[in-house]
Amino acid sequence: MNRTMLWAMFTPETTAAELFPLDPAASQPLYRQIYERVRGAIASGVLKPGDRIPSARALTKELGLARGTIDTAYALLAAEGYVQTRGQAGTIVTPDLKARAPVASLPSRPEVGGAASFRPDTILPFQMGLPALDLFPRKIWAQLGAQRARAMQPADMVHPSVFGLPALRTGIAAYLQVSRGIDCAPAQVFVTSGYRHTLSLIAKALLTAGDLVWVEDPGYPPTRDLLGQMGLKPAPVPVDRDGLIVSEALRAAPHARAAVVTPAHQSPLGVSLSLPRRLALLDWARRHDAWIVEDDYDGEYRYVSRPLPALKSLDRDHRVLYAGTFSKVLLPSLRLAYLVVPPNQVERFEATSQGFTGGSPELTQSIVAAFIAEGHFARHIQRMRRLYAERRAMTVAGFEAVLGSRFAIDAQPGGMHLLLRPRDGRADRELVAAMREAGLFGEALSDWAAGGQGAQAVLVNFTNIASREAAEALARRLVMA
Amino acid sequence: MNRTMLWAMFTPETTAAELFPLDPAASQPLYRQIYERVRGAIASGVLKPGDRIPSARALTKELGLARGTIDTAYALLAAEGYVQTRGQAGTIVTPDLKARAPVASLPSRPEVGGAASFRPDTILPFQMGLPALDLFPRKIWAQLGAQRARAMQPADMVHPSVFGLPALRTGIAAYLQVSRGIDCAPAQVFVTSGYRHTLSLIAKALLTAGDLVWVEDPGYPPTRDLLGQMGLKPAPVPVDRDGLIVSEALRAAPHARAAVVTPAHQSPLGVSLSLPRRLALLDWARRHDAWIVEDDYDGEYRYVSRPLPALKSLDRDHRVLYAGTFSKVLLPSLRLAYLVVPPNQVERFEATSQGFTGGSPELTQSIVAAFIAEGHFARHIQRMRRLYAERRAMTVAGFEAVLGSRFAIDAQPGGMHLLLRPRDGRADRELVAAMREAGLFGEALSDWAAGGQGAQAVLVNFTNIASREAAEALARRLVMA
Repeated sequence: MNRTMLWAMFTPETTAAELFPLDPAASQPLYRQIYERVRGAIASGVLKPGDRIPSARALTKELGLARGTIDTAYALLAAEGYVQTRGQAGTIVTPDLKARAPVASLPSRPEVGGAASFRPDTILPFQMGLPALDLFPRKIWAQLGAQRARAMQPADMVHPSVFGLPALRTGIAAYLQVSRGIDCAPAQVFVTSGYRHTLSLIAKALLTAGDLVWVEDPGYPPTRDLLGQMGLKPAPVPVDRDGLIVSEALRAAPHARAAVVTPAHQSPLGVSLSLPRRLALLDWARRHDAWIVEDDYDGEYRYVSRPLPALKSLDRDHRVLYAGTFSKVLLPSLRLAYLVVPPNQVERFEATSQGFTGGSPELTQSIVAAFIAEGHFARHIQRMRRLYAERRAMTVAGFEAVLGSRFAIDAQPGGMHLLLRPRDGRADRELVAAMREAGLFGEALSDWAAGGQGAQAVLVNFTNIASREAAEALARRLVMA
Repeated sequence: MNRTMLWAMFTPETTAAELFPLDPAASQPLYRQIYERVRGAIASGVLKPGDRIPSARALTKELGLARGTIDTAYALLAAEGYVQTRGQAGTIVTPDLKARAPVASLPSRPEVGGAASFRPDTILPFQMGLPALDLFPRKIWAQLGAQRARAMQPADMVHPSVFGLPALRTGIAAYLQVSRGIDCAPAQVFVTSGYRHTLSLIAKALLTAGDLVWVEDPGYPPTRDLLGQMGLKPAPVPVDRDGLIVSEALRAAPHARAAVVTPAHQSPLGVSLSLPRRLALLDWARRHDAWIVEDDYDGEYRYVSRPLPALKSLDRDHRVLYAGTFSKVLLPSLRLAYLVVPPNQVERFEATSQGFTGGSPELTQSIVAAFIAEGHFARHIQRMRRLYAERRAMTVAGFEAVLGSRFAIDAQPGGMHLLLRPRDGRADRELVAAMREAGLFGEALSDWAAGGQGAQAVLVNFTNIASREAAEALARRLVMA
């Protein structure tokens, strides 16, 4: 069956582009649309058992889509028993299809979730937390991936170390020394599967249910949620232009056992924790034997001056737990993050890790370790810092031109998002809901406030906005929302 | 500098094989031995800043080692700042090495841990829980790995679904239907990072702190530990030749809210849960609204007859949570497992997953999904089932010949290990300690008993014993222990 025949299956007059809607903003991801077309054709009898369908390669070419999209659709069809791939002979509709009940298919409804959730397969403009996906060094990455997969040895096939791959821990320690001013040994580095895992590990090792923990207000909502889930009590502390107000914290919750802070650029306000505040925080931790969790989620991305050294670099008394992640500087799909613990806490964290996690997959760790060791990581971060500075400036310019009368545009000195503050008093949650209707992402600043109240603004990510024109076009869509 | 010069650095007379001890049973993994040789040469001044060292390719050839081993050693050296790779120009000792303090190196001491822990980089004979590493289809795996890495699209770069990759969930559902008699939709399948994650997810979704949970006695020790960590109360229930004694459980802990069982071949005794017991367990769960966790960790591996259908296949009342894993049928280093929940619990598990995990890395899931969809998975399981039947028979024959007078050898109808029961009344813990001294793995059956008492036996894995001769040689080492 050639491609004309495939389209003819549905309606002879339509073209491929009409059959396979290519709007990425559609609620269905593309692979799923293809999957359902083929499945529908089989179900309705248009495609019969034994019929050949176009090869993934041919369909990729014809539709101008990514090969991965077609492969996923075909893999789904094959896994559900609708089609069979017969190597060179091509792909056919399963001959004895009637005899077998195909497995019920996956419901297409999106995952539930609050402000900070993500809908996989559907990437909306302004989506928070994503690095620039268009300029990721995919070729180098794929080469390393292929190389590490081929290099797999028996030692790479067994249970991975629950502390992390030695080469990766070593690479992270070297990177932190050069780039974030942190002097640590590889044994202090624990590889985790994400911020949630990092924070749970800290709580399990060092805190007790009922402990009070200072959190920034406004601040990253999952921090509060996670602490609550672990039986800890988040104590919100207001943030001003110098970051967390330590004197307020001391007044409101003097007996706190820990603080979770984002010193590089506060999440979400973007301010840096000032040096006096850093010293005050360290002093409090020293005097009270309390712990400071430094969430340095995107500390590398500062545009108005050199990135600040990490708070951890000032930690003479071993009170700071440093939490880093590869989600923002590489890819969220890696599920790799890490934690640096003080040297005198290494044994405790080793013991806690043993009973807590099975470790991260070997292959992913191995690829990242090679990416660091071969120098790609340092180069990638430098390139992204320059790129994001440009995209930030272009986005601000485009937004000012279209939105300047409606919003005060708050370009932060660092990070990956902007704050749009409505001049007309419109509620941020209402605006975010309208944006979602219009196919745009946005988060309401009031959802980041501990009480759900306070300043009104919309948070939008700019790292995937590639030109001023794109920024203006998106701004116009936002005006309509 | 050519290879002769590298060896000459150390002592002119030695050969490569003498310099790099190739005994895999040494406490240091090979890559680390190479790493320390080179680092030592730099520290002692034998290798000077700017000196060229052999390329990884040349050293691989020279030492007859795997390329991955050399790459890991070099990556470590590079990450710690000792050497620099300059593409075609080769690898040199870092020119300004003196000016920089190399990062402290990773301590080489093994991880702490109890009976069921694993020491990465050192695979001992009889190591529990490992599939046959020599016959894993590495070539196909590497091809799929390379292909999936190259096929990466933006949708594969963002946060993965916390429920699992759709193509993988679909593949698992199709496999379970054909192979384990379980009729489930992909939406009922939740991908996890391992048994620990699976059990935590179940506890979080369905149980409350303080709940009693039936566990098998003897039984897999991490189950008891994990339940305890989550605030649940494990209630040990004795196991006889028909599996968990349900009547005993009803008598001893009638108010339990859940049971964790290994029906296919009980872990560690290898018996199957009989049909009357299965029905009694299901009846109990129905009447008490209790939950049954079916841990089907290696249900595929049965040698005396066809693998039994899963308990889940009899679950008319939606009380069974089915826990599967890829650790035993593929590789432990994948960190991929899964959970099948009843259809009426899907929403609850979706909600729980949202606040509980960040999902598993995209690449690993994508490779496994392709491995399933292309039919490699079904073929691999069939091949391993035949292979393990052979290796089990050869191991039993070799052990009988050498150890028959000292041990009763308990060859189970399924699974991946044998039980050696000392005829001379020697304590199993003492024997296991002596085996470890002799470089052999083993676990004491008494460590698997809830009270730490009971029948004495040593558990040894046979899947990596490739011949009767190897079995006899290992048996002789065991006699000396």
